[in-house]
Amino acid sequence: MVAIGECSTSTASRFFPANLRKDAAAAAGTLVRRLSLPRRPCASSKVPSFGTLAVRASAPLPVANEASAKVIDGKYVSKLIRDEVSAEVSRMKEAIGVVPGLAVVLVGDRKDSATYVRNKKKACESVGINSFEVHLPADSKEEEVFKFISGFNDDPSVHGILVQLPLPSHMNEESILNAVSIEKDVDGFHPLNIGRLAMRGREPLFVPCTPKGCIELLHRYGIGIKGKRAVVIGRSNIVGMPAALLLQREDATISIVHSRTQNPEEIIREADIIIAAVGQANMVRGSWIKPGAVIIDVGINPVEDSKSSRGYKLVGDVCYEEACKVASAITPVPGGVGPMTIAMLLSNTLTSAKRAHNFQ
Amino acid sequence: MVAIGECSTSTASRFFPANLRKDAAAAAGTLVRRLSLPRRPCASSKVPSFGTLAVRASAPLPVANEASAKVIDGKYVSKLIRDEVSAEVSRMKEAIGVVPGLAVVLVGDRKDSATYVRNKKKACESVGINSFEVHLPADSKEEEVFKFISGFNDDPSVHGILVQLPLPSHMNEESILNAVSIEKDVDGFHPLNIGRLAMRGREPLFVPCTPKGCIELLHRYGIGIKGKRAVVIGRSNIVGMPAALLLQREDATISIVHSRTQNPEEIIREADIIIAAVGQANMVRGSWIKPGAVIIDVGINPVEDSKSSRGYKLVGDVCYEEACKVASAITPVPGGVGPMTIAMLLSNTLTSAKRAHNFQ
Repeated sequence: MVAIGECSTSTASRFFPANLRKDAAAAAGTLVRRLSLPRRPCASSKVPSFGTLAVRASAPLPVANEASAKVIDGKYVSKLIRDEVSAEVSRMKEAIGVVPGLAVVLVGDRKDSATYVRNKKKACESVGINSFEVHLPADSKEEEVFKFISGFNDDPSVHGILVQLPLPSHMNEESILNAVSIEKDVDGFHPLNIGRLAMRGREPLFVPCTPKGCIELLHRYGIGIKGKRAVVIGRSNIVGMPAALLLQREDATISIVHSRTQNPEEIIREADIIIAAVGQANMVRGSWIKPGAVIIDVGINPVEDSKSSRGYKLVGDVCYEEACKVASAITPVPGGVGPMTIAMLLSNTLTSAKRAHNFQ
Repeated sequence: MVAIGECSTSTASRFFPANLRKDAAAAAGTLVRRLSLPRRPCASSKVPSFGTLAVRASAPLPVANEASAKVIDGKYVSKLIRDEVSAEVSRMKEAIGVVPGLAVVLVGDRKDSATYVRNKKKACESVGINSFEVHLPADSKEEEVFKFISGFNDDPSVHGILVQLPLPSHMNEESILNAVSIEKDVDGFHPLNIGRLAMRGREPLFVPCTPKGCIELLHRYGIGIKGKRAVVIGRSNIVGMPAALLLQREDATISIVHSRTQNPEEIIREADIIIAAVGQANMVRGSWIKPGAVIIDVGINPVEDSKSSRGYKLVGDVCYEEACKVASAITPVPGGVGPMTIAMLLSNTLTSAKRAHNFQ
């Protein structure tokens, strides 16, 4: 956790090499001047209902320089998707007597991992998907993990297998993830799925849940992607890279900004669509954003907050306060991309079960 | 083949949607003015020896606005690589008695395909690699192709298998390419190899030959990639997409321009490194290029040429005449990327044989 004020610049300096901090500081200077204008409240305080938010796919995005961005309500959309999954699970059970099943392999005692696994289990229950769990001690041997994965691979009642990351450091993440059957790789992390995602004319069996959730939000809000300039900040295997591949599949012109990028704010300022996934609190400032851009903020970063009873609050990679005055639409943190990840996992598990039983 | 003058704009209009032609025409206007200046000959007429061409990796690229670009001599570099492969093949044969082998599967009677296969065979012979060939009639059944691929997969004297594309239209290219053992996929087209190429911390067994050749040219000429803005024009599975992934692995900040990109020349003008792979004669104009940029031109396009006895000549995707006045370094067509593809194929086949026999 970092101690940070309302979008202070302290984090930007951690992401960029020393010679670039000057630019970040200059950008912050611009910002301070902008913030001295009378503040208008952002739309986040009043989340409008889903139906009123549609932005036409083909129409130019509205310039929102002085106004507030529309809030892309991931909590609402994820609820919609979970309801859709739930209805399909019921239909499938009635029609062919099959219930989708998701198996989770958890190794070790990390509290955050335990929370994620518990949430996934609860989410499965809420939509009628069976959940299976194996919890192994941190000092388990790799062979034990392989044994359980192999068992789930062979088990016809399991349609999705998820290995909770990170694994203990003595384990080879690559070989363990590769052991998951490609037909049950609901996380979409298998290189065969990533390869198919990258290739034109090929279809991955599964797309990684978080980037899929980002694109789903754009789709559900009717935000056009084709021909748009899209900048993805971060190039991780689980978010940034597959998000860029997904945007390119939908005919966006992509650029990928990362820790070695020499002029990130210049490139980000060209984007019609920004997907930020670096895990740096408030890194993207309002002055880095093209007026009218759409922002999907994947970051969930704890920062100190004396006003909160927990002593901290969660913020994104984008300085929400500033961005919502410039962007045309933005995901809040929390309540934006976060809830979409589990919704996509449920959706992928349903897809897998349908595919296994050839159920339309 | 298209009828085209010296870098006329007629091809640009084919690549871009109608509403963007105005910009292309405007760019061409700029160009005409530039060309009315006294012309200086480009360095292509006198290809300097390799040793004199080294551009320092860390030094800023020279601005070559009024001068001529250095020519990146793919013919010379590919000769160097073939000599290196040849020496390694001899060393391996002497040390462990193993000779690398490349098998080519050719289906049908396309003249261009037959020429490519013949050239690959000759190249194998020239470095001491065994070559195997199966030539099937165009109306063969898929099963026959599978049968031969399966035979090569099991044959320990074969270390690389190459299916010459395109296949006849009644065949499923995807399933045939997938049938090639990943350990012998010297073309690097298997989605598992592409997936590993896309993922950080993973290593593909093989990298596709043409994009690998592009990066090899940059390396051999000491052109730094890390932190540079790189624009790849084209997003094909065999060149554009893997080229972008390779550049990103070397810490370039990549953007990918394609047929749906709305302002290609603006984006291309930001690039320190341009890889053009669209197959459109002379599409990239001199005015689209940032002074001092490095240009790798993958295109090999025949255009009418009454002065040639063949009635045509080969040109790249970049207007060489104009580009060589703006860029700091450029590959000619022919003699640039072209010869690198086969050199990389030989190198991949050697790598495969070394890996199979654990020979360092």
